[in-house]
Amino acid sequence: MTAPSLPPRASWQPLLERALAEDLGSGDATSAAVLAAQARAAAVLEAREALVVCGLPLAQAAFEAVEPALRCEPARGEGDRVAPGTPLLRVEGPTRGVLAAERTALNFVARLAGIATLTRRFVEAVAGTGVEILDTRKTLPGWRVLDKYAVATGGGRNHRFGLYDAILIKDNHIAAAGGVGAAVKAARATAAGHLALQVEVESEAQAAEAIEAGARLLLLDNQSPAQLRRLADRFRTEAVLEASGGITLANVREVAETGVHRISIGALTHSAPSVDVALELRDG
Amino acid sequence: MTAPSLPPRASWQPLLERALAEDLGSGDATSAAVLAAQARAAAVLEAREALVVCGLPLAQAAFEAVEPALRCEPARGEGDRVAPGTPLLRVEGPTRGVLAAERTALNFVARLAGIATLTRRFVEAVAGTGVEILDTRKTLPGWRVLDKYAVATGGGRNHRFGLYDAILIKDNHIAAAGGVGAAVKAARATAAGHLALQVEVESEAQAAEAIEAGARLLLLDNQSPAQLRRLADRFRTEAVLEASGGITLANVREVAETGVHRISIGALTHSAPSVDVALELRDG
Amino acid sequence: MTAPSLPPRASWQPLLERALAEDLGSGDATSAAVLAAQARAAAVLEAREALVVCGLPLAQAAFEAVEPALRCEPARGEGDRVAPGTPLLRVEGPTRGVLAAERTALNFVARLAGIATLTRRFVEAVAGTGVEILDTRKTLPGWRVLDKYAVATGGGRNHRFGLYDAILIKDNHIAAAGGVGAAVKAARATAAGHLALQVEVESEAQAAEAIEAGARLLLLDNQSPAQLRRLADRFRTEAVLEASGGITLANVREVAETGVHRISIGALTHSAPSVDVALELRDG
Amino acid sequence: MTAPSLPPRASWQPLLERALAEDLGSGDATSAAVLAAQARAAAVLEAREALVVCGLPLAQAAFEAVEPALRCEPARGEGDRVAPGTPLLRVEGPTRGVLAAERTALNFVARLAGIATLTRRFVEAVAGTGVEILDTRKTLPGWRVLDKYAVATGGGRNHRFGLYDAILIKDNHIAAAGGVGAAVKAARATAAGHLALQVEVESEAQAAEAIEAGARLLLLDNQSPAQLRRLADRFRTEAVLEASGGITLANVREVAETGVHRISIGALTHSAPSVDVALELRDG
Amino acid sequence: MTAPSLPPRASWQPLLERALAEDLGSGDATSAAVLAAQARAAAVLEAREALVVCGLPLAQAAFEAVEPALRCEPARGEGDRVAPGTPLLRVEGPTRGVLAAERTALNFVARLAGIATLTRRFVEAVAGTGVEILDTRKTLPGWRVLDKYAVATGGGRNHRFGLYDAILIKDNHIAAAGGVGAAVKAARATAAGHLALQVEVESEAQAAEAIEAGARLLLLDNQSPAQLRRLADRFRTEAVLEASGGITLANVREVAETGVHRISIGALTHSAPSVDVALELRDG
Amino acid sequence: MTAPSLPPRASWQPLLERALAEDLGSGDATSAAVLAAQARAAAVLEAREALVVCGLPLAQAAFEAVEPALRCEPARGEGDRVAPGTPLLRVEGPTRGVLAAERTALNFVARLAGIATLTRRFVEAVAGTGVEILDTRKTLPGWRVLDKYAVATGGGRNHRFGLYDAILIKDNHIAAAGGVGAAVKAARATAAGHLALQVEVESEAQAAEAIEAGARLLLLDNQSPAQLRRLADRFRTEAVLEASGGITLANVREVAETGVHRISIGALTHSAPSVDVALELRDG
Repeated sequence: MTAPSLPPRASWQPLLERALAEDLGSGDATSAAVLAAQARAAAVLEAREALVVCGLPLAQAAFEAVEPALRCEPARGEGDRVAPGTPLLRVEGPTRGVLAAERTALNFVARLAGIATLTRRFVEAVAGTGVEILDTRKTLPGWRVLDKYAVATGGGRNHRFGLYDAILIKDNHIAAAGGVGAAVKAARATAAGHLALQVEVESEAQAAEAIEAGARLLLLDNQSPAQLRRLADRFRTEAVLEASGGITLANVREVAETGVHRISIGALTHSAPSVDVALELRDG
Repeated sequence: MTAPSLPPRASWQPLLERALAEDLGSGDATSAAVLAAQARAAAVLEAREALVVCGLPLAQAAFEAVEPALRCEPARGEGDRVAPGTPLLRVEGPTRGVLAAERTALNFVARLAGIATLTRRFVEAVAGTGVEILDTRKTLPGWRVLDKYAVATGGGRNHRFGLYDAILIKDNHIAAAGGVGAAVKAARATAAGHLALQVEVESEAQAAEAIEAGARLLLLDNQSPAQLRRLADRFRTEAVLEASGGITLANVREVAETGVHRISIGALTHSAPSVDVALELRDG
Repeated sequence: MTAPSLPPRASWQPLLERALAEDLGSGDATSAAVLAAQARAAAVLEAREALVVCGLPLAQAAFEAVEPALRCEPARGEGDRVAPGTPLLRVEGPTRGVLAAERTALNFVARLAGIATLTRRFVEAVAGTGVEILDTRKTLPGWRVLDKYAVATGGGRNHRFGLYDAILIKDNHIAAAGGVGAAVKAARATAAGHLALQVEVESEAQAAEAIEAGARLLLLDNQSPAQLRRLADRFRTEAVLEASGGITLANVREVAETGVHRISIGALTHSAPSVDVALELRDG
Repeated sequence: MTAPSLPPRASWQPLLERALAEDLGSGDATSAAVLAAQARAAAVLEAREALVVCGLPLAQAAFEAVEPALRCEPARGEGDRVAPGTPLLRVEGPTRGVLAAERTALNFVARLAGIATLTRRFVEAVAGTGVEILDTRKTLPGWRVLDKYAVATGGGRNHRFGLYDAILIKDNHIAAAGGVGAAVKAARATAAGHLALQVEVESEAQAAEAIEAGARLLLLDNQSPAQLRRLADRFRTEAVLEASGGITLANVREVAETGVHRISIGALTHSAPSVDVALELRDG
Repeated sequence: MTAPSLPPRASWQPLLERALAEDLGSGDATSAAVLAAQARAAAVLEAREALVVCGLPLAQAAFEAVEPALRCEPARGEGDRVAPGTPLLRVEGPTRGVLAAERTALNFVARLAGIATLTRRFVEAVAGTGVEILDTRKTLPGWRVLDKYAVATGGGRNHRFGLYDAILIKDNHIAAAGGVGAAVKAARATAAGHLALQVEVESEAQAAEAIEAGARLLLLDNQSPAQLRRLADRFRTEAVLEASGGITLANVREVAETGVHRISIGALTHSAPSVDVALELRDG
Repeated sequence: MTAPSLPPRASWQPLLERALAEDLGSGDATSAAVLAAQARAAAVLEAREALVVCGLPLAQAAFEAVEPALRCEPARGEGDRVAPGTPLLRVEGPTRGVLAAERTALNFVARLAGIATLTRRFVEAVAGTGVEILDTRKTLPGWRVLDKYAVATGGGRNHRFGLYDAILIKDNHIAAAGGVGAAVKAARATAAGHLALQVEVESEAQAAEAIEAGARLLLLDNQSPAQLRRLADRFRTEAVLEASGGITLANVREVAETGVHRISIGALTHSAPSVDVALELRDG
């Protein structure tokens, strides 16, 4: 699989600008006081632990936004798995610019590579089962497109981006519509004809009713492996089955072996620890 | 200690708008298809695990931004420690509005309470030593003021907000200035007269030189407890000493007992896992 | 059918602000010169021709944004078909505010009701065939969510909102992938697992290949009624068939009777004439 | 006449960004799935019908904003009248970039050339009479500067841009001021000394009173050709006379021959159908 | 004369938000540390010197933006001339909110009242001559609408707002066009038909040529009183004559008595000293 | 001393865009009418009076934002003192672009050099005393970072940037806390550990109490030279003393000689007259 497309710049440029503004404010007081305006440096953004590379274009954009005279050269590709000490991005130019963007660049990579690395671990844990690992909408507010890009870079598959690009019928909707079947039919009659439709079901009866009403994608939330296996045995040729809820690296393989097609995991984006990356600087 | 002030709305409003826009896009397709426009609901945002409350004003702002007719009532205060199952915020009004803002509201609280909860654990781990727990600039891009607010809510103290509001002299600056003393003097002569000044030192000799040049705040990064104790014994009455680097819940007490005054911890903001919060809904 | 949800305010607020700013600039020079600040008026936004109502919430938002003291009361609902002379929205308050927002409010309604009205005519032209009328991405730049809302208000169904929320494989993609089947397979393996997938096909052979590869939604662009009928006869039980290209009120019925399931029409949004609406004012 | 100046980029850049964001969202899902990142293409934006060229700088800006590596070369100038099949703009570079910007670029040109083309037809319909064709404030919300640029490109003359840059006294103002003369005098005493002043009059008596009070620009709305001729015979040497209301291509010549100096037409911008333009692509 | 209309909020809201953001940043550190969240205060914004009131709506907007619970009550009207010690605006509510907005509110009033007060002095200096005092485009970047509002509030008349809302032909344009007459004719043929047209002339010959070509508004820059008198004697019935350049309170009367109709003065906005205003606070 | 760092572009870019938008609006009507699109010019921005250079990067940014084809070359450095007639910045390129940006570029330089020049005069007035000249928060709303940059360029030292980056305890805070000592202690216990802390004191007793509580920076507002001398004699080795209130060029030396360390002056930014700069143009 090739690395996925970076989201359009317009989708993350405002976040980058906000990030730079919050760190720079009225300027880097230390550099202004101590560093000569003419000083130049060469620097390497490098991995301090084993990780899956993600976010280098953001880091590069941070450096270039702060100081157009900086020259950046990626040393590795998005999605690469690298060992500790691996150089990821080289930067060269005015030292004040390098230091002004340093923390923002590192903070972007530390989070995005953190997500990609965690995702890769889940993907590897289910290797051979054919099961896909998906993200959720439990992303950091403001980071949706980037968090999802990092999941894809780690080898995961993206679930819907928001409330707008797919229909997901949950218990509240079912109650409001008066049943699974009614909810599915109402949704299929909706004005947005191109949307994928998924239904969260809690029992075999509900699953059967949903499929009968035309649903081809079921969400099975917080169910035991035994229940998942029962549902998979009965429905896996009629609908795509997605398990979710309480999935960890310790139990993901067991869930994958129940016969479901995919597993969605909120922790990929809401609790991925950042990875350790740093900028090594020498005079330019 | 009372809970700290919420940052000015102008400082986080753009992030909230971005968060809502990325989740809502052209609208909640499921609600539009299944829920009647007139339906009303009452909901409770509640803790699913023990946590330190943080972010309720953001959650409330999310609900009200999506649907001005929603009425919100906080049930607990920022900084409260609560047990699993505790109601945190009540919301009442049009069901479509409740569901449209639900995920964004939860995502804000899950992260901010996650940071506050982790901070509180560090603060308690050093209880009685008089040592303060500080954050760093390793915050999520775009989240600086909120991340720091969560640390303060958890009982931590805020380090500088960015490159602009304090001077922190590190190895690169020292090298460029030709020594610790020269760097400190250059910084004290800078145009921004009100800024606090901190120096990162790696040895007793450097610490002595920095203090001699007028520094009253030293950063001791990645030093062993033995080294920290040696530096604290010699300098703790002349300067405020801050330890950082590799601090975990397992070793923070040992570091605190070396005699340093404060400990800064990047993981408070770059790797705090989110806490589990959920919205319970019933018909309004 | 009930009227669809208004898109979230965040999705059109910037356009409204831009519209008001471009018309008001530094202020309404005529009112400032001629009207007393205290003058009050009551006004009615009314239809001057038969139309399908759309855009009243935008008009109301325009009045209230210009002058919070204005009170607005919709007289008809979105999607209503009304006769010439029908009052649509009542406004009351400071005259300067009424006049300052008047043109912007009217311009929004004139376009959106124009689209809704044209859509309704197409929908009625195919009444009884079961065929759905869809929009396209040929919307006015900046107006996507509003244009699509107007189509839905007129009784149409929304096609994908943009390049991001569905996959549509066209000739260039097919050529790049080396065939219809290869393109469909590549798309189904993509990271965004929830996206609907449509394929544009130009022959029976391509249609068969696409369906064989798993496509369930075909776009038949610029094909004659005879060709459409042939394709529908063969494939309409295996895939959803969408005709497009050169569809007018004069020929839409003939196309609908070929057996396709839906028809998408760019003119709904790129060439809908505005309807005639006006504001009648009297002293308040 | 030469083509008018393109409005300053700052005046339309936000609309372009909004347009790209609404179409691209989190990215072009189809290209990401099917096209290699390295693929390159050459494309030609061409006219599919006879039209007056307008909007190429917007199209070029769209391509370059999406992908800085794209190279654009206009093949025709703004305001040129061209035959079907004429190449208007050449684009070359990464295929993903070409396709990502394609629809936005086409949508801008289709509308702006649509306005310019319709304007040109009105201008030609009154050729030889010396009468000028003007636009109104019935532009699409958010599009004021672009719509007016398109009218100018088509050979029309721009009326005031908004409420701020000229004074136009209508019936409500006249009633509020207590008469035409009083309104004109109040307006001339206003703080904005440089503004042009126009008065809408409904009778010869009002016209005489307005001119007596110093008005030199009269608006004659919804009057019959006979009435227009009468007013023109009496006042055309004392004031500039502008006819408006219900003007079509069928009757514009008759109106122009009444002796008025100019004719303003809302349909130029509120109801101009888009013209047919398309992007032809081949491998680069 | 009544006070002029406040410019539309959309025209100054971004400046207000920027002003609050730059002063508040992450919050008022002093209040957070020292003041109880529940503390309430009553405060009066008052004049410390004789001045013409201007900017109170901005001050009120600043208080309300920072803290919606603040209640503001203007004590004087815009354009009022007041003595030292006069209360201008009362504020009541949470003390933290009052103090957070205080400086921004004062800074707006200090500048705007400064401009209005200086303008009033010029207006009074020419009292009885019938001459009008105008501003220029030498306003503070970002403050155009507010600076011009303050001039109008002081009794001055506004010149054009920018390059877009009137034509002003200067020496460069004359040279480019090949003479005054050619420039005037080119301008009158321009696409924006409603724009006022002014010509800067340097000699009687140029003035005569401009008038001959149809100009009715002449700018006489940097000319001696004797020259102004000569031009006024000859042309003042044929055109509006505006003097500018080097006008001070010391010489404005002499210039006014030359017979010109109006005098424009850059110093009104580029060099008006701020007036002294302060906020008196007592517990609420 | 070297010139200080220009604030990060992100901190003033929005103000520049607002400035250009307010002057350009829909475009330069005069240039569009009179100047050929191909005309080129060379221009020099020059000093018309003796001044301290400041703001050239803003002027350059204005030219380049309006017309990317313009080439700018600074002729002098920020902070240089220059004689009347000195060229400051050369611009070359399309004439329409030069004229469109001219007024905005000049307005930025006129204000910023005005502040720098006034600051330099104060700095020189205290030459030899060792006293530093500081600014205040009495800057123009929206201009904080630029105003402070101009003070630093003039040789002044920057006081805190806003309410967020230092603590300044004034009479209201002291009253609320129940005394100077209590206020200082509360502030030192605050969550933001890096902030500088200053206390405004009105008597020797208060000064002693503040120092006793740990304050090292005192503000002495509106005190007579005799009082300042008394305070300085007693406390100048224990705390940094800052005088403020009513300082002019006429009395600043007397204040400086009282023994205080620094003097803050609101007039540097709230009342600095602009300097005279102009653009000389010749054909390119």
